[in-house]
Amino acid sequence: MADKQDEKKVTPRSEDFAAWYNDIILRAELADYSPVRGCIVFRPDGYAIWEALRDELDRRIKRTGARNAYFPLFIPQSFLQKEAQHVEGFAPEVAVVTHGGGKELEEPLIVRPTSETIINHMFAQWIHSHRDLPLMINQWCNVVRWELRTRLFLRTTEFLWQEGHTAHATRAEAELETLTMLETYRSFIEEWLAVPLVHGRKSAAERFPGAEETYTVEGLMGDGRALQCGTSHFLGQNFSKAFEIRFLDEQNQMRFAWQTSWGVSTRLLGALVMVHGDDQGLRLPPAVASTQVVIVPIWRKPEERDKVLAAAASIRDSLEKAGVRVRLDQREGITPGFKFNDWEMRGVPLRIEIGPRDVAAGEVVMARRDILGQAGKTKLATGAVGERVPGILDEIQRNLLKQAQDAMAANTRQFDDYTALRSQMEGEGGGGFADIYWCGKAACETRIREETRATCRAIPLDQKAAPGPCIICGAEATERAHFAKAY
Amino acid sequence: MADKQDEKKVTPRSEDFAAWYNDIILRAELADYSPVRGCIVFRPDGYAIWEALRDELDRRIKRTGARNAYFPLFIPQSFLQKEAQHVEGFAPEVAVVTHGGGKELEEPLIVRPTSETIINHMFAQWIHSHRDLPLMINQWCNVVRWELRTRLFLRTTEFLWQEGHTAHATRAEAELETLTMLETYRSFIEEWLAVPLVHGRKSAAERFPGAEETYTVEGLMGDGRALQCGTSHFLGQNFSKAFEIRFLDEQNQMRFAWQTSWGVSTRLLGALVMVHGDDQGLRLPPAVASTQVVIVPIWRKPEERDKVLAAAASIRDSLEKAGVRVRLDQREGITPGFKFNDWEMRGVPLRIEIGPRDVAAGEVVMARRDILGQAGKTKLATGAVGERVPGILDEIQRNLLKQAQDAMAANTRQFDDYTALRSQMEGEGGGGFADIYWCGKAACETRIREETRATCRAIPLDQKAAPGPCIICGAEATERAHFAKAY
Repeated sequence: MADKQDEKKVTPRSEDFAAWYNDIILRAELADYSPVRGCIVFRPDGYAIWEALRDELDRRIKRTGARNAYFPLFIPQSFLQKEAQHVEGFAPEVAVVTHGGGKELEEPLIVRPTSETIINHMFAQWIHSHRDLPLMINQWCNVVRWELRTRLFLRTTEFLWQEGHTAHATRAEAELETLTMLETYRSFIEEWLAVPLVHGRKSAAERFPGAEETYTVEGLMGDGRALQCGTSHFLGQNFSKAFEIRFLDEQNQMRFAWQTSWGVSTRLLGALVMVHGDDQGLRLPPAVASTQVVIVPIWRKPEERDKVLAAAASIRDSLEKAGVRVRLDQREGITPGFKFNDWEMRGVPLRIEIGPRDVAAGEVVMARRDILGQAGKTKLATGAVGERVPGILDEIQRNLLKQAQDAMAANTRQFDDYTALRSQMEGEGGGGFADIYWCGKAACETRIREETRATCRAIPLDQKAAPGPCIICGAEATERAHFAKAY
Repeated sequence: MADKQDEKKVTPRSEDFAAWYNDIILRAELADYSPVRGCIVFRPDGYAIWEALRDELDRRIKRTGARNAYFPLFIPQSFLQKEAQHVEGFAPEVAVVTHGGGKELEEPLIVRPTSETIINHMFAQWIHSHRDLPLMINQWCNVVRWELRTRLFLRTTEFLWQEGHTAHATRAEAELETLTMLETYRSFIEEWLAVPLVHGRKSAAERFPGAEETYTVEGLMGDGRALQCGTSHFLGQNFSKAFEIRFLDEQNQMRFAWQTSWGVSTRLLGALVMVHGDDQGLRLPPAVASTQVVIVPIWRKPEERDKVLAAAASIRDSLEKAGVRVRLDQREGITPGFKFNDWEMRGVPLRIEIGPRDVAAGEVVMARRDILGQAGKTKLATGAVGERVPGILDEIQRNLLKQAQDAMAANTRQFDDYTALRSQMEGEGGGGFADIYWCGKAACETRIREETRATCRAIPLDQKAAPGPCIICGAEATERAHFAKAY
């Protein structure tokens, strides 16, 4: 096995980021390619991260008052056409069921690319009075978008996500909900995935088809490209008018509901890999790691084995008692060095090594995944492990976020000069975030996109900058925007 | 609102079981019909039961050593054809995607009706050596089967389920796994859903397409018809040969793996309704009820309101502290009587009523959902609520199981005489379980099915009966079998 691993070296990250990314995902056994075009298999180690992430986000979503439900996978083709922008955005990339039970269907069914249409059709049955509002529904499910170019986790024909859909009596309430969910995503992703984000509005060109306003949380990946990590849409009354979601208000007037939708998907797994991974493999934040600590027992002579394993088992027990997700690697016939590499590849945040001399001295060696080499190693008295490790895991969680924040800060640049922006985007390293004055006009945005491939990722909220000249046309811009090349 | 509820009376269960069943599901807001043929919407109260059930079963499945993963929704049409019986069983009821991204596909894709084929294709990539075995994978997902006649929860075009797929080095190990999962289902369904079961083998006619042996857990519904609640299949080497899942054993010989698959679905929600429900609505076992206790405050005069609500809130707090899932119904403008009916419809196991006189006396009235009327009511000192209620909930859980066991026992009959069996199956009440000697020959089974519509539901495990004469042909039968009309 050790030989087999050596055969396939991981492409260094600095050499070819895309190849490194695929290597890590396959070698850490997070996912695998499937025989179905653009669809991937989430292997147990990858799916376990999704489960950890889903369970915590689900708790946070429920805390906002939304409840989970489940709507059909299939959507009548005619539904998609009810909202003009929506159909324009999604029709080109849908999968269509034309036959069922051996017969051709009278009306083809779309495999949901998102569920606004089917959910809002049901909302219209359930909402009659202001007393039925707000209605706040979340759904965890699979969706399908026929993508031309796919990439593991980031862009796959089928992916997993949650999609929230809400209806409110007033515009203000719906706008507040849109921002509440944006903040829910921002805090969750930063606190649990240790991925720092820019949060803000999308430009009109980047809006969700059918939304009045789209808000986004954007991360910066290790190659300097941005990744949209979650979006929250204020839908206004576009869908409530298309699906006739009306209610009697307290003055007995018929009104159309105000709506939102919001979602994050399995592409968050891609963010984890691209923000934290290194040439040794994954680096998982303790909050989402299904194994937070691995214990590697070390012995040479058979007579050392029992003592070392007994000590290792007792350390495992004390960690379990302390609520730590711990694994004791008792595999035989594999060298400790192979095990170290294997668990580093899988991103386990903390490794505990214990050999005969450690047993005799009543101590263990701890090796942090976030700090490689001797700098990340410390000795600890065996008796202190249960008490100290939870704090060390917190430290690792904070440090991973800090490292990612530093990397994002170093790769975020203010430009006043378009030539400098262009040269940065053309250079090595993907370009990072360009923080610029942009007047908001589509023509200026298009020029930047066509000439640099950077798009408007977000117009950050809560800006304190004074107005300044648009980097393209020089007209007064009231806000700064983050542009970047993106996944 | 009270008037609206009165308008639509629930069909009495004794009058029309099928109409009663639909009424309860719609009125308790567990599910709704959708505009997509045969697909339903799981509303929040229904989905919450599925979540409670899923979370506990997931824990139990993981305890057996299986890990969760996720495989593509779409399956190439050619995959289905690799196992002869499998394609024969499923081809007539699949939904087919023929177009994607605006183009006709070269090979149509099947929407998974079950995932043996795609999962075993991946197993063949992952399994090379005996060290890769056992491989035990579970998947929670949606599946689609094009059903001609659909019924809420029991038979829908799309449904949710878990499907386990395992590969082992030996026949014995795979057979043991099949039975381990059958027992996992039996104990889970009896302990959590309070649904008593017959567990045993299926006859050859009722086997899963592609299995060597199918095991089942069968419940008996309130109308005397059986419901298959879960199945566990021993697949032998049928799929490993079709998909070339081979491994080098410890003697360096190439062997085909031995396999199992097993699943339960959202039809379990139908079992809950049909086993426990009554004319007042659902009766939820406390283990799966998202609200275990509802507190209904009662007052007439405005000056009573604050005192009653304060007492009710303090009871809620003490129940939350005791780990009870409790809800305080503070809705205004609705009578207590309406609230009682509403929560009875939704199946909340225990209701606590508190009015001004109760506050003064320092007590509350508890009303059990499993014992209607005065017999289910007791008074309890307010200070004892937190301590006593968990025990009462356990009692309700046990009593619901006991009531269901009594009903199943009363509706399970041994027959030695075929005429008596026929007349029982023709009579009112659906027929119940017929416990009979059957020789195992298909001809006798077919005659029973054609003449009585009863099918072989299970040949119970661990039989102690001596051999006896087949109820049809009189030939010696070594086992007894349970026949019933079924959903």
